[in-house]
Amino acid sequence: MPTTDALVDLLGALAYGELSAFDRLAEDARMAPALDGRAQMSAMAAYEFGHYRLLADRLAELGADPAVAMTPFVAPLEQYHSLTTPSTWLEGVVKAYVGDGMAADFYREVAAFVDEPTRALIEEVLSDGGRAEFALREVAAGLEVSPTQRGRLALWSRRLVGEAISQVQHVLADRDALMALFVEGAGDLAGISRLVTRVTERHERRMTTLGLNG
Amino acid sequence: MPTTDALVDLLGALAYGELSAFDRLAEDARMAPALDGRAQMSAMAAYEFGHYRLLADRLAELGADPAVAMTPFVAPLEQYHSLTTPSTWLEGVVKAYVGDGMAADFYREVAAFVDEPTRALIEEVLSDGGRAEFALREVAAGLEVSPTQRGRLALWSRRLVGEAISQVQHVLADRDALMALFVEGAGDLAGISRLVTRVTERHERRMTTLGLNG
Repeated sequence: MPTTDALVDLLGALAYGELSAFDRLAEDARMAPALDGRAQMSAMAAYEFGHYRLLADRLAELGADPAVAMTPFVAPLEQYHSLTTPSTWLEGVVKAYVGDGMAADFYREVAAFVDEPTRALIEEVLSDGGRAEFALREVAAGLEVSPTQRGRLALWSRRLVGEAISQVQHVLADRDALMALFVEGAGDLAGISRLVTRVTERHERRMTTLGLNG
Repeated sequence: MPTTDALVDLLGALAYGELSAFDRLAEDARMAPALDGRAQMSAMAAYEFGHYRLLADRLAELGADPAVAMTPFVAPLEQYHSLTTPSTWLEGVVKAYVGDGMAADFYREVAAFVDEPTRALIEEVLSDGGRAEFALREVAAGLEVSPTQRGRLALWSRRLVGEAISQVQHVLADRDALMALFVEGAGDLAGISRLVTRVTERHERRMTTLGLNG
């Protein structure tokens, strides 16, 4: 069974992830070429804020102050966002789908290591609110206008993945309870390797869906 | 009875008001000195986005494209926001309470001139989601640490009001249907004058509540 420290760390990391996703999606929405795209990305931001609130409430139920629980994860998540600030609308769309999608897959794997109510909460806050169709439509429309963006967006996706992995490694190295949860949950090195393979495969599927593979 | 053009204009102005309030509150939340204040201002942003969605849905029911209905109001609202960009957390808090409060009072007055379902919708989207208590607490805490900010915040509030009035005048001068709704609803010059007096009095009450008067 994971310790309360590990649960509070996991929920704190997720909660700050949602709060910063809210913040970044709201900011990236401004790059939308038209009001309806802006409204749709703003809707995603508001949706993530709803998830933040569920996580903050659960932290409070566990007797933890949400702000304190989130604090260790502010620096690594801000570092991720500052290293992956989109410079175009399509980069923002791809980040919302590919970057957030990969983070969700990773959290879903870790959710298998915790108690049932926490797992159900994590699965609820990871639902993507229809952003796959949105990303697909926006990227297809963008590539039709300017097909040369394909290579650039493929590179951008690789950068998102690289920076995300780098920050996950920093966090695990710093948070013993979280590392223990992760290692015990995965079982052994082979278990960790299978987990990473699954997350990578789902990432590749998203890239194929967007037409950014191969 | 107001024309459909006037209703679409009114709802379009309100809808863009909510979408831009979402955007600005999300941005201003970043200046919060601590994570809990940031989460609270982000919550206000998400709340305004919910209001935006109700207004966009109503516009669609009326057969209007929400993006088209909002377009005439993008420039004046962005102008208002760019002339009143807060440079401190407390300026942002005061703007969220005093600026948005005055806008809400104005819309509430205009709501008296339209049909009952539209009036009910407008009253719903103007509910402030508890920001009065939030503003009061944050401003009191800020003034305790640094009482010299009082004069500066009082000036800031006057600036918010001045810029808001200036943009309302621009909008009414540009949108005939909206001007007709306003003038017919108020009845005559004396009616307009009483409306302005009521809005001003409520503004003064908010200033007193914050301790920024006299």
